[in-house]
Amino acid sequence: MRSDSTTIDVPESSAVAKGKAPLMPAPRPEKSPYKKGLAIFDFLLRIGAIVTTLAAAAAMGTSDETLPFFTQFFQFQAGYDDLPTFTFFLIAMAIVGGYLVLSLPFSIITIVRPHATGPRLLLVILDSVALTLTTAAGAAAAAIVYLAHNGNPNTNWLAICQQFGDFCQKVSGAVVASFIAVVLFVVMVVLSALALGRH
Amino acid sequence: MRSDSTTIDVPESSAVAKGKAPLMPAPRPEKSPYKKGLAIFDFLLRIGAIVTTLAAAAAMGTSDETLPFFTQFFQFQAGYDDLPTFTFFLIAMAIVGGYLVLSLPFSIITIVRPHATGPRLLLVILDSVALTLTTAAGAAAAAIVYLAHNGNPNTNWLAICQQFGDFCQKVSGAVVASFIAVVLFVVMVVLSALALGRH
Repeated sequence: MRSDSTTIDVPESSAVAKGKAPLMPAPRPEKSPYKKGLAIFDFLLRIGAIVTTLAAAAAMGTSDETLPFFTQFFQFQAGYDDLPTFTFFLIAMAIVGGYLVLSLPFSIITIVRPHATGPRLLLVILDSVALTLTTAAGAAAAAIVYLAHNGNPNTNWLAICQQFGDFCQKVSGAVVASFIAVVLFVVMVVLSALALGRH
Repeated sequence: MRSDSTTIDVPESSAVAKGKAPLMPAPRPEKSPYKKGLAIFDFLLRIGAIVTTLAAAAAMGTSDETLPFFTQFFQFQAGYDDLPTFTFFLIAMAIVGGYLVLSLPFSIITIVRPHATGPRLLLVILDSVALTLTTAAGAAAAAIVYLAHNGNPNTNWLAICQQFGDFCQKVSGAVVASFIAVVLFVVMVVLSALALGRH
């Protein structure tokens, strides 16, 4: 023993200190189940969000409706591509669904290694952006769906859902699905924050 | 020295180890400036977001426009209360602005105590909800503003911005301000996640 070294007394009650001293401090195993549970829950929420966003995109994409009567020059037809907002909705849902599928491996990494903060940080940052995109698409489509259902007498925008009932129903379903996805995303961000904050 | 104690050699270069051994491990001072810097940046972003949301609410609230001509029975007038989406926008911006003002003390706590995770967790959870509300209001209003500017020939919704130019300009300004607030919120959530993840 060198003269300039420092001696730290470890009391006898410590279980680790007996025998050889470990080179590294032992990992705290009592917090692992909590973080692992959060990671598994995050994975399940992610799968739910994939189903919801893809269902929203599918409902919007197949919302075309052609009325059974037509004049000589014109056939009455409504589809998502008649309204730019619905096109944006479809694209945004497809992007978010694709991102969620690509994020699954990172979610699995957080299950396998609950104490790794890197993948969790990446997920929470990208999740916030995806949350914003989903909310924007859902809210914009909801505003247009509301107009299609109720119209607006002040601006002379007439409701179109009397004529295109099936179209409106499918589009409304897509909007509801996107709102469920928004709730799932908020829960995912909050869970990730909780997992990051517990250390 | 007792026989069952553990000896840890601390090399001579360590500044803390000379003389008496400290009872508690010294706090890691090298990470404090990083977290404190993030907290101060968060505070500044929060003040910026307060200004932006209140400006958006003010622009929307004062967007009334009355045209200088009128018929015997009707005066042409447009205001945010003519469109339910704009009313929602105004209420949402007021709520978010109020929340941001109330969140300032918690942001100050994270500056004073950079290692406390409690206030930071509270802020990141409430921030995600406020982000969702701001995005929803901004996107819904943007969809309606787009309609007001361009109309939609497929549904016979005519543009109203030719008549109500000032109204449209104010409302568009409010939407832009709300989008700036959305960006600030995303940055705040990401910064909070980074601060939580670094431990």
